[in-house]
Amino acid sequence: MSQTTTKRPLSVLQKSLNKSVIVRLKNEVEYKGKIDSVDSYMNLIMTDAEELHDGKIVGKYGRIILRGNNVIFIKLINEI
Amino acid sequence: MSQTTTKRPLSVLQKSLNKSVIVRLKNEVEYKGKIDSVDSYMNLIMTDAEELHDGKIVGKYGRIILRGNNVIFIKLINEI
Amino acid sequence: MSQTTTKRPLSVLQKSLNKSVIVRLKNEVEYKGKIDSVDSYMNLIMTDAEELHDGKIVGKYGRIILRGNNVIFIKLINEI
Amino acid sequence: MSQTTTKRPLSVLQKSLNKSVIVRLKNEVEYKGKIDSVDSYMNLIMTDAEELHDGKIVGKYGRIILRGNNVIFIKLINEI
Amino acid sequence: MSQTTTKRPLSVLQKSLNKSVIVRLKNEVEYKGKIDSVDSYMNLIMTDAEELHDGKIVGKYGRIILRGNNVIFIKLINEI
Amino acid sequence: MSQTTTKRPLSVLQKSLNKSVIVRLKNEVEYKGKIDSVDSYMNLIMTDAEELHDGKIVGKYGRIILRGNNVIFIKLINEI
Amino acid sequence: MSQTTTKRPLSVLQKSLNKSVIVRLKNEVEYKGKIDSVDSYMNLIMTDAEELHDGKIVGKYGRIILRGNNVIFIKLINEI
Repeated sequence: MSQTTTKRPLSVLQKSLNKSVIVRLKNEVEYKGKIDSVDSYMNLIMTDAEELHDGKIVGKYGRIILRGNNVIFIKLINEI
Repeated sequence: MSQTTTKRPLSVLQKSLNKSVIVRLKNEVEYKGKIDSVDSYMNLIMTDAEELHDGKIVGKYGRIILRGNNVIFIKLINEI
Repeated sequence: MSQTTTKRPLSVLQKSLNKSVIVRLKNEVEYKGKIDSVDSYMNLIMTDAEELHDGKIVGKYGRIILRGNNVIFIKLINEI
Repeated sequence: MSQTTTKRPLSVLQKSLNKSVIVRLKNEVEYKGKIDSVDSYMNLIMTDAEELHDGKIVGKYGRIILRGNNVIFIKLINEI
Repeated sequence: MSQTTTKRPLSVLQKSLNKSVIVRLKNEVEYKGKIDSVDSYMNLIMTDAEELHDGKIVGKYGRIILRGNNVIFIKLINEI
Repeated sequence: MSQTTTKRPLSVLQKSLNKSVIVRLKNEVEYKGKIDSVDSYMNLIMTDAEELHDGKIVGKYGRIILRGNNVIFIKLINEI
Repeated sequence: MSQTTTKRPLSVLQKSLNKSVIVRLKNEVEYKGKIDSVDSYMNLIMTDAEELHDGKIVGKYGRIILRGNNVIFIKLINEI
């Protein structure tokens, strides 16, 4: 997992479509779901997303578009 | 619904005109209505919009223009 | 009123000159008046504008220039 | 005063040199004086300016340069 | 002093090298000194600068570089 | 270690892949791990990352993408 | 020291490599060390840096990269 790649962060994101992620926004809210699409501003479409406050599910979204400028991090989960 | 598409988030938004959405802004206020138009900054015109504070309707707008830089997310609702 | 148009938000604004609007800024203050001119940053000139705090008039302005980056929304009122 | 013009906000500002204005900044402080020059970012030079806190004069400035990104509004006063 | 010039704010700043100014930043701290150089972002080098909190000197700087995006205003002092 | 180099900060970052770093974000949270990739906005992919609050580990991430605009600093550790 | 130069602020910074500086960030934390490299955003690499809170050393960094958009000022010290 720690083998070096020289791919840029946004290229890696583009190749992470359909992967499960947790996205944390500046307001500390997190969204857990799959990345359906992403662009260079980190605007994201997530599907089957759960909104998490302090780790607890407070809402579900079939499809949600997150504006990239609010993103703090995107955690790639379930990596094999 | 979770079939992979490679469309970018803004293209998906452009194809969501007339769909019902909930838009949450940075000040935590939400607007529920239909997308009448949208541009690459996520500037939005919504029609028949309701302003929601903590899920309660506090105002109604025949037509409202939201400045994109305030958007946290856009939730597509009533998807079949 | 909810007939679909594919016009972009800023084009719609450009065609709303002389219409009555309420503009809400990030500091929650609202300005009610007519749009005299607008540009792509949503910089606005309003005429015969009233400044509203919690819906109460606290000031009047013959002509006022609002800097666009403070805008949260522009509500088009008195639409027929 | 409310006759429609199609001039853009910044053009109007450029034609307001030497007029008396009140400029309100994001920190709620206001400056009352004459516009000596202005550019497209709303950077302004004001002359004979008074700094107002809650409408009270707290300082005077022979010439002051305001950085445009702090501007909320510019009110044109003494219009005939 | 109030004779009209049509020079843009940044040009005026460029011609104010070696003049005494007070620069107020967004954090309300002020710096009093001479402008040694300035660019279009209002990045400034000041020499013989004093840092002022509520008008009291709390620090001295032989040469200090201020990042322009923090600037609220630049007051030109000692103008003849 | 303090020998002068004229390399720009982002070039140095690009050459720090696979090195251990601590990244501090504006919300004061720190991430300790290896840089897997980085771009000119300081968007970063870190691997084997630990999230630190006041120096205590509160979370672990196999792979995490940090959005560059939140970064305060990147500390290069374990330099020989 | 106060002789006029017409060099722009960023050019002066570029010529200050290896000089001792104090950098103050928007969160009021200061870093004292040598500039190893700098770019036009004021992204900085500092070496042998100390982190100062209210003037007290709270941390030491062999090499640290500061993101320029957080910078308030850079004080050049030990000038002869």
